[in-house]
Amino acid sequence: MSTKSFIHDNFLLKNKYSEQLYHEYASKMPIIDYHCHLPPKDIAENTIFNNISNVWINGDHYKWRAMRTLGVNEKYITRDASDKDKFLQWAKVVPHTMRNPLYHWTHLELARYFDIYDLLNEQSGEKIFEETSAKLNSPGYSVQNLIKKMNVEVVCTTEDPTDTLEYHQQLAKSDFTTKVSTAFRPDKAILIDAPGYNEYIDSLGEAAGVSIANYDNLREALRIRIVYFNENGCKLSDHGLNQILFEDFTQAEVKSIFAKKREGKELSETEVAKFQSAILLFLSENYHEFGWVQQFHLGALRNNNSRMNAKLGPDTGWDSIGDFSQAERLSRFLNALDRKDKLTKTILYNLNPADNEVMASMIGNFNDGSVKGKVQYGSGWWFLDQKDGIIKQLNALSNMGLVSTFIGMLTDSRSFLSYPRHEYFRRVLCNLLGDEIERGELPNDVEWIGKMVENISYNNAKEYFNY
Amino acid sequence: MSTKSFIHDNFLLKNKYSEQLYHEYASKMPIIDYHCHLPPKDIAENTIFNNISNVWINGDHYKWRAMRTLGVNEKYITRDASDKDKFLQWAKVVPHTMRNPLYHWTHLELARYFDIYDLLNEQSGEKIFEETSAKLNSPGYSVQNLIKKMNVEVVCTTEDPTDTLEYHQQLAKSDFTTKVSTAFRPDKAILIDAPGYNEYIDSLGEAAGVSIANYDNLREALRIRIVYFNENGCKLSDHGLNQILFEDFTQAEVKSIFAKKREGKELSETEVAKFQSAILLFLSENYHEFGWVQQFHLGALRNNNSRMNAKLGPDTGWDSIGDFSQAERLSRFLNALDRKDKLTKTILYNLNPADNEVMASMIGNFNDGSVKGKVQYGSGWWFLDQKDGIIKQLNALSNMGLVSTFIGMLTDSRSFLSYPRHEYFRRVLCNLLGDEIERGELPNDVEWIGKMVENISYNNAKEYFNY
Amino acid sequence: MSTKSFIHDNFLLKNKYSEQLYHEYASKMPIIDYHCHLPPKDIAENTIFNNISNVWINGDHYKWRAMRTLGVNEKYITRDASDKDKFLQWAKVVPHTMRNPLYHWTHLELARYFDIYDLLNEQSGEKIFEETSAKLNSPGYSVQNLIKKMNVEVVCTTEDPTDTLEYHQQLAKSDFTTKVSTAFRPDKAILIDAPGYNEYIDSLGEAAGVSIANYDNLREALRIRIVYFNENGCKLSDHGLNQILFEDFTQAEVKSIFAKKREGKELSETEVAKFQSAILLFLSENYHEFGWVQQFHLGALRNNNSRMNAKLGPDTGWDSIGDFSQAERLSRFLNALDRKDKLTKTILYNLNPADNEVMASMIGNFNDGSVKGKVQYGSGWWFLDQKDGIIKQLNALSNMGLVSTFIGMLTDSRSFLSYPRHEYFRRVLCNLLGDEIERGELPNDVEWIGKMVENISYNNAKEYFNY
Repeated sequence: MSTKSFIHDNFLLKNKYSEQLYHEYASKMPIIDYHCHLPPKDIAENTIFNNISNVWINGDHYKWRAMRTLGVNEKYITRDASDKDKFLQWAKVVPHTMRNPLYHWTHLELARYFDIYDLLNEQSGEKIFEETSAKLNSPGYSVQNLIKKMNVEVVCTTEDPTDTLEYHQQLAKSDFTTKVSTAFRPDKAILIDAPGYNEYIDSLGEAAGVSIANYDNLREALRIRIVYFNENGCKLSDHGLNQILFEDFTQAEVKSIFAKKREGKELSETEVAKFQSAILLFLSENYHEFGWVQQFHLGALRNNNSRMNAKLGPDTGWDSIGDFSQAERLSRFLNALDRKDKLTKTILYNLNPADNEVMASMIGNFNDGSVKGKVQYGSGWWFLDQKDGIIKQLNALSNMGLVSTFIGMLTDSRSFLSYPRHEYFRRVLCNLLGDEIERGELPNDVEWIGKMVENISYNNAKEYFNY
Repeated sequence: MSTKSFIHDNFLLKNKYSEQLYHEYASKMPIIDYHCHLPPKDIAENTIFNNISNVWINGDHYKWRAMRTLGVNEKYITRDASDKDKFLQWAKVVPHTMRNPLYHWTHLELARYFDIYDLLNEQSGEKIFEETSAKLNSPGYSVQNLIKKMNVEVVCTTEDPTDTLEYHQQLAKSDFTTKVSTAFRPDKAILIDAPGYNEYIDSLGEAAGVSIANYDNLREALRIRIVYFNENGCKLSDHGLNQILFEDFTQAEVKSIFAKKREGKELSETEVAKFQSAILLFLSENYHEFGWVQQFHLGALRNNNSRMNAKLGPDTGWDSIGDFSQAERLSRFLNALDRKDKLTKTILYNLNPADNEVMASMIGNFNDGSVKGKVQYGSGWWFLDQKDGIIKQLNALSNMGLVSTFIGMLTDSRSFLSYPRHEYFRRVLCNLLGDEIERGELPNDVEWIGKMVENISYNNAKEYFNY
Repeated sequence: MSTKSFIHDNFLLKNKYSEQLYHEYASKMPIIDYHCHLPPKDIAENTIFNNISNVWINGDHYKWRAMRTLGVNEKYITRDASDKDKFLQWAKVVPHTMRNPLYHWTHLELARYFDIYDLLNEQSGEKIFEETSAKLNSPGYSVQNLIKKMNVEVVCTTEDPTDTLEYHQQLAKSDFTTKVSTAFRPDKAILIDAPGYNEYIDSLGEAAGVSIANYDNLREALRIRIVYFNENGCKLSDHGLNQILFEDFTQAEVKSIFAKKREGKELSETEVAKFQSAILLFLSENYHEFGWVQQFHLGALRNNNSRMNAKLGPDTGWDSIGDFSQAERLSRFLNALDRKDKLTKTILYNLNPADNEVMASMIGNFNDGSVKGKVQYGSGWWFLDQKDGIIKQLNALSNMGLVSTFIGMLTDSRSFLSYPRHEYFRRVLCNLLGDEIERGELPNDVEWIGKMVENISYNNAKEYFNY
């Protein structure tokens, strides 16, 4: 078997139209990665990783879940085994990830960053560890160079309102040509029933220079941080919520709920919902004022394994897909903003693919002709960021809305080696369109379809975010 | 690019079996359009439209949503721009609807009604406006001729219980060869929590010649209108409900709930559910008595945008797909009828494709051998009336039930130019079956499969509705 | 039409890789049927069926539903028509089941057990009835021979805790080379709100030799039966539940709920949920102690047609797919066990395909590296046991987890002629993988993929259940 053949020029492209669309249109476009979780410190400090495990395995809960499923001991995952031994364990696991997106990502990333076309497995593991580590130790593989290598025009990381944004400031002053922006993610201020809420509110108060004794103080503090983020170039917010808990409320109720919480008392489900509704509306109205885009990532069921969570903390691989009811309350929330003419540009993401059509049709309710593609149905996210999930999102969006206005892909990643996911998305998109040209379901007008590909790959996002 | 090539004889047909099934079996069958929203007045008066915007754009909320999503100003959609300017705006939008069913419908409709094979876009817009408008202004393009052109044997429109059915009466006496029937849609009498309910009940009373003071009067009035519809040839009812709110109730409770409403008081959710359960059972028992077919369109989330609804009213493009829980209460409702042996022929439609298998398996619970295909899983509806949605409905029905007993397609449309949707459905069906013959998943017996195609296209509906 | 051509060597296999994977890897592997509903009495007594209706139609609610949908009178389904007449009715129905899994199963079963390659229909019905009945009346077609013919290494039936397991004991002592094991299915002890609960508890007490006056007695009785099942070689349990009703409870509450029920009083929904939570946890902790695998079949909506249920009893074709909320409470239940380190190997099955990704991602929350594939996402079940359903389950599992660790197919059947469903599953699997090799989405390494096929077909189950 020629291993060169697995990742090759026409990987995932099945006919001449797909190939033409990808090579002549998609592949040339720069990347605007408008939502990710890269650590800005590493970008600002232009970190050099001493081996591939540090940039590829340590921190990647996708790989961890696969390893655990195969029965690999935690020692080789998040614990005290050496970086090399962790990599060798991962190498052994890789062939068993066949059909999982990890299999494609792994080989695409080895090819694009390291020019390695061997399949990663037990036999090739050691050689690949050495080869990649040697490369990573050279300046050409510093974080900034990893980003530049992929033609990334914008990276938008995600920060808590308490963040100082010092690295973003440092980067703004630097000569790094990729723009590094931030997104405002105030989940911790919203999730009033999460453990540690009051401590978090204290730290938010400190960051804002406001002593948060009551709900008005909370709003003041959040507003101060929004202004601060805005001054530092922020154009987006992001919210990770199981579901929008939208309930009617009065300001008096919300004030008393917040006061109750600050006194350390338990809140009822209704009180939590009323508070979240109020604070979300407040935040969204502020985003509208500053012309930000707001993002909602809906439907995750988080921290399911309390034993492992206690050992490893959140975001270590114990989350899954929820089946919350989404449509009615999301609609009422968006409508509450729209009614006041304060609905800003919005991107809706769902984690349960059973909600695809709910989201894809929801956006049309608030696309009122004022802005092209104002409310967007976001790209396949997390568990859905794979070929099947990408296709289903594109199909739902195409059938219920206009895929031609779609702002396209983002990595949502914590890893500096995941930019080939944009390539992956574009290949899937081009193959879908090329296949339909061949089947006569799209007109045989590669120039027009190619323009659509360029728009979805780059131009639409450029225009939408105004980067 | 030859534009002839986009809509051609074998559009959507991918192999010789598909072609044979379509051309030799499907295409010959007349159309029974057993559910649509065409205005009977235009049929009775044999309206001639003076330009294509009046028959194609003004009134079509599918196109409106697409235009708004692309950022077209409402002026060119529902407001004061000229018909021609509206059309030119739509022409510009069309290429951007690629992958949306609008793209296929648009070109199929231009081809079938106007013999136009050009792609509609900014360049061709003016010419096509003139050409279609010229044709529409000739008697060959009167409403009745548009219908006859498509080989439509039955059109079944949908009317409120208060409707006089005067146009249906006029048509029954006319020499128009297509049968124009009506379906009884009493949503406004059921949705007791909707605005304007009491005013509606007054008008229902007037139509029935009954002063509706109490629940018994309401039942009497509805019964009178059912008898009236029946005398006027009605054989179907239709209900558009988010979900069946089936709750246990007593007659005494329902009487007092209705009285409370008539006094202008607010009802609780439970009261609304009890009332709906009672009135639905009452109606369904009446449908059974008259041998009607009952239809339930479940799962829409309506009127999401209150700002635009206030300006434009309902059904103007602000609806989407809900994620209501459907299975348990729908089952209890059907069972309540079946237990008394009063379950009439029933068609279940779902708007959220996540419910496809719930519906496709639900029908089997009440198919008891008494009538072939007694409870039907209805064709992909509204947002699901597109290639993907049609295939998913056919697959769910095939896997959970018998697609061979399926009564097939309906337009559900408000436009006189949408009969090619039957052709579209038949092409998708024939291609699905032809593909499976080629793959060896169906026996290579085109004659038998062709018979199934004829049944699904026409014979099953003919037998089911007994038109 | 050559009828030989419908079932042939490469049925469902579309390219050379698929063929190679199936013929060189999958087809050789024995069958471990780790979950079915075959009656052990017939195996132990090595029953010979006097005609095909007795082994194929009488008892098969899949076929009954199809016949009823086509309008066949119940006389020919479950009532007093002769076996031959029932078969002839079924023969007439078969062509109308095109696209339903029954069509493929029917012809695969005729081919594999009877070497019959004719299509079954009205014309061939009589001949096939005679030919199969003649064969069935010979010793080569006794139940044990039917099982051996299909290379079945293990059959695991499903029994109530009250079962004597006498036939399993008899089989253990016999020279029948297929291992016949049992699974413990205590649904009747869990479903405290089902009719006849108290009578059932009495019979459970009798089976265990315990007078069940209180909740402690119930636990004692169940424990005694678990020990008894374990002594008789049981390694699995099974639970058929709409949904896991997981609620917090105290032992005192549960004791009083059970006492209330034993006094014949009605329980509230919360009481039912608390009781089910407690008893499920108790059972699961016991399964963990004995190293059993536990199975949860979630999402059926049962006994929808009370009129027909009253006539024919449960499991006669009146069940369908529910849309219960599953994720949150299932997660909390599994976590409650995991937290105590008492989560045994677990298989989750869902009936609503809208929950596929919920389940496929849920398993990862509790796969902690301790056991390869410890928590499994079970194969497409009941309505989902068809090509589409199998592919969707495989895709969800592949995308969210590792299909390479999958324990594969089971029949879940009540019929001795349904072992070709394993072949059917393997063909679908091999075709899926072969197709991806051809498309370059899997590496062209048939040896490796073949090993994965062998694992999914047999080795993984062998290791997982340790048969």
